[in-house]
Amino acid sequence: MRLHTPPDPQVIGTLATTVAEAGGIVTAMDMAESRHDRLVVDVTCSTGDAEHSNRVVEKVEALDGVTVHKVSDRTFLLHIGGKIEVTSRVPLKTRDDLSMAYTPGVGRVSKALADHPEDVPRLTVKGSSVAVVTDGSAVLGLGNIGPGAALPVMEGKAALFKQFADINAWPICLDTQDTDEIVRAVELIAPGFGGINLEDIAAPRCFEVERRLRESLDIPVFHDDQHGTAIVVLAALTNAMRVVGKRLDEVRVVVSGGGAAGSAIVTLLLAGGVTDVLVWDREGILSADDDSLSPAKAELAAKTNRDRRRGDLHDAVTGADVFIGVSAPNVLHKDWVADMNDDAVVFALANPDPEIDPIDASEHAAVVASGRSDYPNQINNVLAFPGVFRGLLDARASDITLEMLLRAAAAIAGCVKDDELNPSFIIPSVFNSEVPKAVARAIAEREQPPTPTPGD
Amino acid sequence: MRLHTPPDPQVIGTLATTVAEAGGIVTAMDMAESRHDRLVVDVTCSTGDAEHSNRVVEKVEALDGVTVHKVSDRTFLLHIGGKIEVTSRVPLKTRDDLSMAYTPGVGRVSKALADHPEDVPRLTVKGSSVAVVTDGSAVLGLGNIGPGAALPVMEGKAALFKQFADINAWPICLDTQDTDEIVRAVELIAPGFGGINLEDIAAPRCFEVERRLRESLDIPVFHDDQHGTAIVVLAALTNAMRVVGKRLDEVRVVVSGGGAAGSAIVTLLLAGGVTDVLVWDREGILSADDDSLSPAKAELAAKTNRDRRRGDLHDAVTGADVFIGVSAPNVLHKDWVADMNDDAVVFALANPDPEIDPIDASEHAAVVASGRSDYPNQINNVLAFPGVFRGLLDARASDITLEMLLRAAAAIAGCVKDDELNPSFIIPSVFNSEVPKAVARAIAEREQPPTPTPGD
Repeated sequence: MRLHTPPDPQVIGTLATTVAEAGGIVTAMDMAESRHDRLVVDVTCSTGDAEHSNRVVEKVEALDGVTVHKVSDRTFLLHIGGKIEVTSRVPLKTRDDLSMAYTPGVGRVSKALADHPEDVPRLTVKGSSVAVVTDGSAVLGLGNIGPGAALPVMEGKAALFKQFADINAWPICLDTQDTDEIVRAVELIAPGFGGINLEDIAAPRCFEVERRLRESLDIPVFHDDQHGTAIVVLAALTNAMRVVGKRLDEVRVVVSGGGAAGSAIVTLLLAGGVTDVLVWDREGILSADDDSLSPAKAELAAKTNRDRRRGDLHDAVTGADVFIGVSAPNVLHKDWVADMNDDAVVFALANPDPEIDPIDASEHAAVVASGRSDYPNQINNVLAFPGVFRGLLDARASDITLEMLLRAAAAIAGCVKDDELNPSFIIPSVFNSEVPKAVARAIAEREQPPTPTPGD
Repeated sequence: MRLHTPPDPQVIGTLATTVAEAGGIVTAMDMAESRHDRLVVDVTCSTGDAEHSNRVVEKVEALDGVTVHKVSDRTFLLHIGGKIEVTSRVPLKTRDDLSMAYTPGVGRVSKALADHPEDVPRLTVKGSSVAVVTDGSAVLGLGNIGPGAALPVMEGKAALFKQFADINAWPICLDTQDTDEIVRAVELIAPGFGGINLEDIAAPRCFEVERRLRESLDIPVFHDDQHGTAIVVLAALTNAMRVVGKRLDEVRVVVSGGGAAGSAIVTLLLAGGVTDVLVWDREGILSADDDSLSPAKAELAAKTNRDRRRGDLHDAVTGADVFIGVSAPNVLHKDWVADMNDDAVVFALANPDPEIDPIDASEHAAVVASGRSDYPNQINNVLAFPGVFRGLLDARASDITLEMLLRAAAAIAGCVKDDELNPSFIIPSVFNSEVPKAVARAIAEREQPPTPTPGD
């Protein structure tokens, strides 16, 4: 906020107090101008959301003699002009530069690639580029906001790809929500990319889009909302088991939410050794003997709930060891956590508002994680996708296997050392630069012969 | 070349002489290692093409005691890893950075854009981004080499967009040569881009692709091989007329080649005031009374050759003032130039080998231009497309008009001052930084009321 205030030395203190009383956190206070009749003060503060921000501004405006001249929002300012750019890796200052990077020199490279298409990834950006593809149908918690409004999210993702794994990712926001058209559009643009990262595409469409693209393309296709989430959840769960001293093959896991993320989590947990999984969704506990389920949910039911239990979420979690929520805010009651098994593990990952407040969950659970950065144990996909694609590109992989996802999860879990591990630290920081490297190595590694047991 | 040679102080001289005798131009000679029994010498030299390069290497290898250890090619080395990258414009070092550039902060921006789609260009990369779209069907002089092999050319173009106009261009190499699929793919990816630059798409497909996209999209669509070339040709012709003291509306122009470039040149010349144009192609001089012409050629014939002449290229150029070749190597005989009108102008733009050697053309023509950088007056599209798109993006234009193209040509021509203008300097240097700025201003300027005549 830029404010005009009376030339009163007390005003700074009053402003700070007022912002704090309104729940804002002052991060900077600058005197932009000081005159005999007024001061111009720039106040920077954090607020929860746009509405909270308005309340803070109103409180400040109500102060005697203070005029709010202009309100700007750091997040919006940051977005002006976009968050990514395309830059040249080669000099273009002389005719000689131009004749190598562009005509006539580039013609020799293109001719060589026409004769040897296998060299395209090595001699072009294809070897390091990923398309971040969305149809804008399930963007963050905002839902179906369309391709244009989704662009800032895809740009952010592209920026993270560069920052964490030196990958050149470009947003592709598609002007369609038709499955056939999405598939065909991605197939058509694929020659220029080394991988496809599907993003924020609504279920069940995302399943078919991914399946069909995996079949038709010779580059890896990864739906981050599914597999990225599943990798980080399995990594966190692996370490939570280390904390509570249980094994994956002996715990009962309840997954709340049978959508894109939930189904991918179930698949990876089962591949990772978990045997007892219940999925709860709007329909109740998913069970193979429920004929009313959609095809996607029926498939999920067939893989889980071997005892064909039925019931609500309270029934599901009673006696369970692990709750993993990728569903909706506040569906898990605090008292129900007390009905879980001893040393319960609760991952409440709904964004922005989790299935249960992490503080409330901590009363009865031994380990709690959420998607939020303001609590311990943040489950954040940025731990997975940069390293996953770095490894895929390094290996010139044409496909992603379940084994790769398992190895990636193990690599992330392994970045938390035994002496670091505790109930509030089961997952490494997103800024731990070892994580993407470890994930990339795990993804790129060839299938190795089993390590001989020590002493053999 | 990295060479192993005997430890003879004369060897450097011998190497330089040998390379020169083989027609290579030595640009650097580095002693990488000197031992009592041998020297390791890196020789960098320019050669005409891969075959010439091989001949130079053979000659060097034939020298007594010299072993060629490794041959590398600067142009290929430059291409390793690709020529462009995607970088973040925003810091991503702290949780606070992440929370603004990505979740949760980005959600507020996306929500705002869902409510106000008109702000997408301002708050995303859309406002500065161009898709460089090809189907790989007519790449440089190489023909139909496909989308993967075309990628180095599109990357080079993207790098030039950044260098000359700070535009973020991304290559889109389409895995189809079907008109409907090309059109639909571009429509589907359009939400993330502020403009579409079509590139190296074969005629007549490129005409329909461009026409349909112009109708369906709300962002400008520009086929550089057509309109970029036409702009620079008109700019050069305008200045050639200043040199020879003729007016556009009184000269006869012969365009050799009725393909994509030729037809765009004809359209722009007619809009720019030229009235007497003949087009020559494989069929001879195109004439409206020739029923055997393809639809595209018939359209061209209808706009030109008002006297319905027929004949070969010699007939066409006899008595003509201007020859513009966008066709094939060596179609214009040297003697025919002598049969042109006095102060003839010859633009021989076929790449890499022009319609006539510029030196030969100069014997009888007053002004000669070509597409080559090793002769005066290089007609290079890089004079046009960066500024054109800069202007379109600055103006948030939804379409490109013929008037814009005319203004762009005038702007380029105007960058050559009266005291600079001469038969060997009718077109500014591609490194003249005023050119893209002048073109951008010319494109973005609103239709102005006519300037009053001085003295009114």
